Amino acid sequence: MSATSAPPPTERSRVRRAEDRGHYDRATIHAIIDAAYLCHVSFVDERGPLCLPTAVWRVDDHVLIHGSNGSKMMKSLAQGTPACVAITHLDGLVMARSAFSHSMNFRSVVIHGAFEAVPDADKAEVLDRLMDHLAPGRRHEARPPDRNELAATTVLRMPLFEAAAKIRAWGPKDKDGDLALPVWAGVLPLRQTRLPPLAEPGCPAETPAYVQQWATHA
Amino acid sequence: MSATSAPPPTERSRVRRAEDRGHYDRATIHAIIDAAYLCHVSFVDERGPLCLPTAVWRVDDHVLIHGSNGSKMMKSLAQGTPACVAITHLDGLVMARSAFSHSMNFRSVVIHGAFEAVPDADKAEVLDRLMDHLAPGRRHEARPPDRNELAATTVLRMPLFEAAAKIRAWGPKDKDGDLALPVWAGVLPLRQTRLPPLAEPGCPAETPAYVQQWATHA
Repeated sequence: MSATSAPPPTERSRVRRAEDRGHYDRATIHAIIDAAYLCHVSFVDERGPLCLPTAVWRVDDHVLIHGSNGSKMMKSLAQGTPACVAITHLDGLVMARSAFSHSMNFRSVVIHGAFEAVPDADKAEVLDRLMDHLAPGRRHEARPPDRNELAATTVLRMPLFEAAAKIRAWGPKDKDGDLALPVWAGVLPLRQTRLPPLAEPGCPAETPAYVQQWATHA
Repeated sequence: MSATSAPPPTERSRVRRAEDRGHYDRATIHAIIDAAYLCHVSFVDERGPLCLPTAVWRVDDHVLIHGSNGSKMMKSLAQGTPACVAITHLDGLVMARSAFSHSMNFRSVVIHGAFEAVPDADKAEVLDRLMDHLAPGRRHEARPPDRNELAATTVLRMPLFEAAAKIRAWGPKDKDGDLALPVWAGVLPLRQTRLPPLAEPGCPAETPAYVQQWATHA
């Protein structure tokens, strides 16, 4: 599948509530994933349904997660157990004239499917892509993983085949009868922003450009 | 259970990976929940495991979510199906000298259990608590829900009995052999911040104090 084509939503990836908020094109889905460092992963083991946060990145048309081989989550997911991944950015609190019409602005992607292990031969390359996602250029500076570190790490990928984005990005939608009420209405915006870097005490290394620029393009 | 006592972790609420990051005291768990507007909820229906974002708030020792009676998620969860709720705040990217030791700073709470419906008689009060959480004082200004709106809304709560917090809030932990490498190390902090309010065009109402102050205490 090319990066721009989009399969039609399946019965389970189709957005059900507020269908006008649903998007299925790859560009929209990729942009929401690429703006995230974290996802939540759902799956079931003998403890019941689990919802666990973990680092996320994208390579082509897959989302990736990683962890220690010893992680119970990694072991369960590596077996291809059914899973669901969600990524959500909260963009604002939507204040309507009526309590009932309050809402939130957000961008989310929900992906249904199953993970599969990234083959050993590809691990180093996709982990480089994670480093690029966190800090472009850093993979040329940090010590790369050695053979033992790579062997101790499970990297899993899930295709974006059953993925749906949902976006709300507008002001309050009050009922007509409420529009004249003398109540402030609008959006209280929220954004994930970058604060000044905290260098490790005694770190003798020069400050790279991507660190210097960290907090300048929030 | 008092607000300060804490039950011991159960087999499924105990933090397994990086146990030094686990916290089970109520004050820590409550603070992480109270800093959030959104949670992710996991449960299983005929589509398989689901992971869906939704608004969250706390009343005493319960987390609450709400939605339309027509929502498939609300219908499933109201039946007491096993569920898991996660709330995660990402506080920074942790840059170590080696790629392998990179990490993230975060505060999370994971809660296992099942939801139950808040009785009709209590709905208005707990929805007021949601409004207080979003904007203290606003429930005295916005039009309160009428009988039909209340009847159309499902409010669910899950007790914090099987809840665990996990916190990482420190710099990189490199292997001893990597400490002398000439690689910048430290934390690139992230924070959810508030941007200036966006008033609805033509909104004639005065700007309340909680809106004026929104972006001043990020």
